[in-house]
Amino acid sequence: MSEHEHVADRVAERAEEHAHHGYISDKERYLARLRRIEGQARGISRMVDEEKYCIDILTQISALTSALEAVALGLLDDHLKHCVLDAARSGGPDAEAKLAEASAAIARLVRS
Amino acid sequence: MSEHEHVADRVAERAEEHAHHGYISDKERYLARLRRIEGQARGISRMVDEEKYCIDILTQISALTSALEAVALGLLDDHLKHCVLDAARSGGPDAEAKLAEASAAIARLVRS
Amino acid sequence: MSEHEHVADRVAERAEEHAHHGYISDKERYLARLRRIEGQARGISRMVDEEKYCIDILTQISALTSALEAVALGLLDDHLKHCVLDAARSGGPDAEAKLAEASAAIARLVRS
Amino acid sequence: MSEHEHVADRVAERAEEHAHHGYISDKERYLARLRRIEGQARGISRMVDEEKYCIDILTQISALTSALEAVALGLLDDHLKHCVLDAARSGGPDAEAKLAEASAAIARLVRS
Repeated sequence: MSEHEHVADRVAERAEEHAHHGYISDKERYLARLRRIEGQARGISRMVDEEKYCIDILTQISALTSALEAVALGLLDDHLKHCVLDAARSGGPDAEAKLAEASAAIARLVRS
Repeated sequence: MSEHEHVADRVAERAEEHAHHGYISDKERYLARLRRIEGQARGISRMVDEEKYCIDILTQISALTSALEAVALGLLDDHLKHCVLDAARSGGPDAEAKLAEASAAIARLVRS
Repeated sequence: MSEHEHVADRVAERAEEHAHHGYISDKERYLARLRRIEGQARGISRMVDEEKYCIDILTQISALTSALEAVALGLLDDHLKHCVLDAARSGGPDAEAKLAEASAAIARLVRS
Repeated sequence: MSEHEHVADRVAERAEEHAHHGYISDKERYLARLRRIEGQARGISRMVDEEKYCIDILTQISALTSALEAVALGLLDDHLKHCVLDAARSGGPDAEAKLAEASAAIARLVRS
């Protein structure tokens, strides 16, 4: 397969995943938020390495946890909207399975 | 100041911070855990970039949140043990202030 | 209206609400769990009144919080299953509104 | 023992517990908050019994969880202030044990 065909395949594959996974509309926004989150994680490592004041490190960990929570809630909302509602609309037995899976993910989020 | 003196100063400064901030005994362990946490954050970015299944991303976010929580609880325990107890033992009015600060950090953790 | 008619009306009304709100199948189980939760809340009041050891009271509060979380997750799952999926299946614009409302409730749970 | 002596004994016992458990200064305030919490728990039972709208019940559960969290954070702060600091000041090995116990309670709160 040529490089060109390979890329074309990859694009098609992506488009299909998109149709399936559905959060691509905000993908760039999610990636920007996750880059910030990676930066926050690196910053916390640096603070420990430089032995910064413990309470200040805890404040940064709380901020990072809240940022992660916000991303999780956004992804979950997108997932329910696209994936679960679509399954319900297309009418198969799939919707119940999708929902059970989403409920288990919600429970993990609430408890983590 | 020569480079050598600069380094010596820096070491002395570190030692003093250590005496003050107190969690150095486990510092390497904290840094190793934080490197894993940075890796988890990068992994989540990659999953979004590759449009992995949303529920799998949420599972990784819950795991990262739990890992952060464990680091925060460890740092907090060290802080109470070294910083707050030491202040109480040396008997000044500082202990109450340290404790008020620690309680505020606990509240942020519980609510984040 | 006779007492009999009044009761009949009330039963009809309940049945209708049931059709709408959907969690009646497990209603007795929820009520039993909530009675236990009320008992736990009373027990915590009694512990404070009798000045029990603070750490033991905190343990009971954590247990009560977990029990409440479990009820909330159960109700949420029922709600998504009955109310949100039904709205999606019947095909109106109502499903999006129901889902936005559910997502806001999930966010409150995760953050509380 | 006369009723009078019995009451006097009880008062002395309470005073001693107070010296030990330390949160009595705010006891009436805690009891008032816990009575409100009991009322919230009863209200949630009633809402399920009357099959109120699920999302409204979830809102009440989130409010109750936050109220419990606030009581727990208050009790914990009092405990650290009175019980743990006092142990540190009186200088015995007890302070470490008290602190380990408090850290375990904090971990349960953060995770519940």
